[in-house]
Amino acid sequence: MASDERHVVLETAALEDFCTTLYRAAGVPEADARLAATSLVEADLRGVYSHGVVRLPIYIERLTKNAMNPVAAPKVQRKTRTTAVLDGDNGIGHVVGVRAMELALEMSGGEECAFVAVNNSNHYGAAAYFAEMAAAQGAIGFSYTIGGINHMTPWGGAEAMLGNNPFAVAFPTPFEFPIVLDMACSVAARGKIIVAAKDGTPIPEDWAVGPDGVPTTDPVRALQGFVQPIAGPKGYALTMTVGLLSSMLSGAAFGTEVTHMYEDFERPQDIGHLFGVLPVSAFQDRGDYDAHIAKAARDIKGVKLAADASEIFLPGEREYFAKIRQRREGVAITAAVHAELGDTGRLFGVEVPQPLAHVNA
Amino acid sequence: MASDERHVVLETAALEDFCTTLYRAAGVPEADARLAATSLVEADLRGVYSHGVVRLPIYIERLTKNAMNPVAAPKVQRKTRTTAVLDGDNGIGHVVGVRAMELALEMSGGEECAFVAVNNSNHYGAAAYFAEMAAAQGAIGFSYTIGGINHMTPWGGAEAMLGNNPFAVAFPTPFEFPIVLDMACSVAARGKIIVAAKDGTPIPEDWAVGPDGVPTTDPVRALQGFVQPIAGPKGYALTMTVGLLSSMLSGAAFGTEVTHMYEDFERPQDIGHLFGVLPVSAFQDRGDYDAHIAKAARDIKGVKLAADASEIFLPGEREYFAKIRQRREGVAITAAVHAELGDTGRLFGVEVPQPLAHVNA
Repeated sequence: MASDERHVVLETAALEDFCTTLYRAAGVPEADARLAATSLVEADLRGVYSHGVVRLPIYIERLTKNAMNPVAAPKVQRKTRTTAVLDGDNGIGHVVGVRAMELALEMSGGEECAFVAVNNSNHYGAAAYFAEMAAAQGAIGFSYTIGGINHMTPWGGAEAMLGNNPFAVAFPTPFEFPIVLDMACSVAARGKIIVAAKDGTPIPEDWAVGPDGVPTTDPVRALQGFVQPIAGPKGYALTMTVGLLSSMLSGAAFGTEVTHMYEDFERPQDIGHLFGVLPVSAFQDRGDYDAHIAKAARDIKGVKLAADASEIFLPGEREYFAKIRQRREGVAITAAVHAELGDTGRLFGVEVPQPLAHVNA
Repeated sequence: MASDERHVVLETAALEDFCTTLYRAAGVPEADARLAATSLVEADLRGVYSHGVVRLPIYIERLTKNAMNPVAAPKVQRKTRTTAVLDGDNGIGHVVGVRAMELALEMSGGEECAFVAVNNSNHYGAAAYFAEMAAAQGAIGFSYTIGGINHMTPWGGAEAMLGNNPFAVAFPTPFEFPIVLDMACSVAARGKIIVAAKDGTPIPEDWAVGPDGVPTTDPVRALQGFVQPIAGPKGYALTMTVGLLSSMLSGAAFGTEVTHMYEDFERPQDIGHLFGVLPVSAFQDRGDYDAHIAKAARDIKGVKLAADASEIFLPGEREYFAKIRQRREGVAITAAVHAELGDTGRLFGVEVPQPLAHVNA
């Protein structure tokens, strides 16, 4: 999303304040508004623009149309010593996710594994945010969610029935940043196909199938069809698995029960998540673990480079350093997203922060 | 592995008996020999030939050369109420894996989540086998392992440092078979590149990189290089994650510590696994869960078919029905594998079962 487009750079704190003010204007209490805003901007800081402030307008629209509950009070529906089901009370996904991961960490107490399944939630942004909360507490963290739109068809099908369901796993490390996997299950984001359709350029054959379920290089046909899973049937099985993990333990929506985040404002989405925690100290002395994962990182980063490469990155490494740099220098978003934030702000008489700079990213 | 080659069909029980006899001849006690044999043949029955009896000769060789311990007695090294570290005592991976999953299920008691990390184990065959043990007990089962050979390079690298690390997740269902994801992280198995090299045909560009780390369509160069992960950097991050899950909580081998299963007989491999259990009944009334996952399955199987498709399969569905059919009609293996089993058998004066039939699969 961040390439080949004009960008503006905003001061990070100013953008966080703007988001907080809009959430407040939509009826969200101060603490939740601040939490939702900072976790949202964090995705932009990390360069994961698809899950950052580009989503703020739809969240605000859903809140003001009562499709999301601004004053949600998530509550535990069911609990054992190390498992729980949390009803998100149709609250902002980011806020519900933080509550759920906090509960998992509390049940774990650094000694037990713990999992919390969530129902009645909403789009929670970037999966990594919650997994990293666990890593910061010395635990391997898991974060799974079902997507807010059915964009994919089962392998061999021609009907939207699956989300491009993302998940994240984060490992604590003794160095500056956690190792973090954060991935969804499609080859390419739908946004890239939209860009190709605008430009009139063909897309690679493995990006999408047309409305008949057959692979196509025509971006217009692709937009009438479905994005393709990574690695064919493997990716279908993976997105199905992440979807089931996110919804079957909590009773949240799956398949035909999933509504369209951008088109259906009548009903709560009943989005499901699953969060898990494996505390390192239960399994290993932390010093031994630290030495082992540091050596693993050195092994990976130290391999002979490919002829066309300049550095090996650990999963999550680039995102971490992007965050550090952008927090200092300001966060880049596209001019189009900046304009859209301006439109949303105007509805509430709130002015979007003026750019520190314009760049061609 | 199972296409374009002459196959023979063997009676399933006869093949299991043959494997059991060979394990016995290599010094494995009766109960463990039988368990190792049945779990091995199960992979062939399911059509996962790469993890079936094709591996028996190397297991037997490692056992007789004392690179694996035939009389292993796995023991718990560390334990909390819901977590444990199991020392596999360098035993057969299939046997160690069953013990570890049994321990996880016992700790769970149908009420808590439970995870068991394993070190000092060996190649455990198909990941699904252990995850399905949990599903049979009403729990979602997780099974992760690090591979027995470093075949992959980190993204941007040109040096083998990662296994093609597989994992499985299995869901209980109210219908005949569990829903099971079982996948590794490369686009194509190395065996397929060997076949292309033999035939002199080019391979797709995303299958492998050459020894310089740059993608190649030349299968000979590919065999000097490394298999490619699915979806580029995503697959690299995924195989890294599965490897870390399998080794960091147990202290098992990773990166430079991983030896070559087929070439190094001097040292134990110290293979790591991770097994996990989320009991459905802790989160949902089983009846509600059953109704929900049955509806999810109907949603998926009921979608409109693609123009070039004849049926939608759930993950694990085809493997289940292959197992049922092959258990009844006999199990197909390639003539080459059959001959190799014959060679291994002759070393111990044990005759490989004669084919019921020859087929061109």
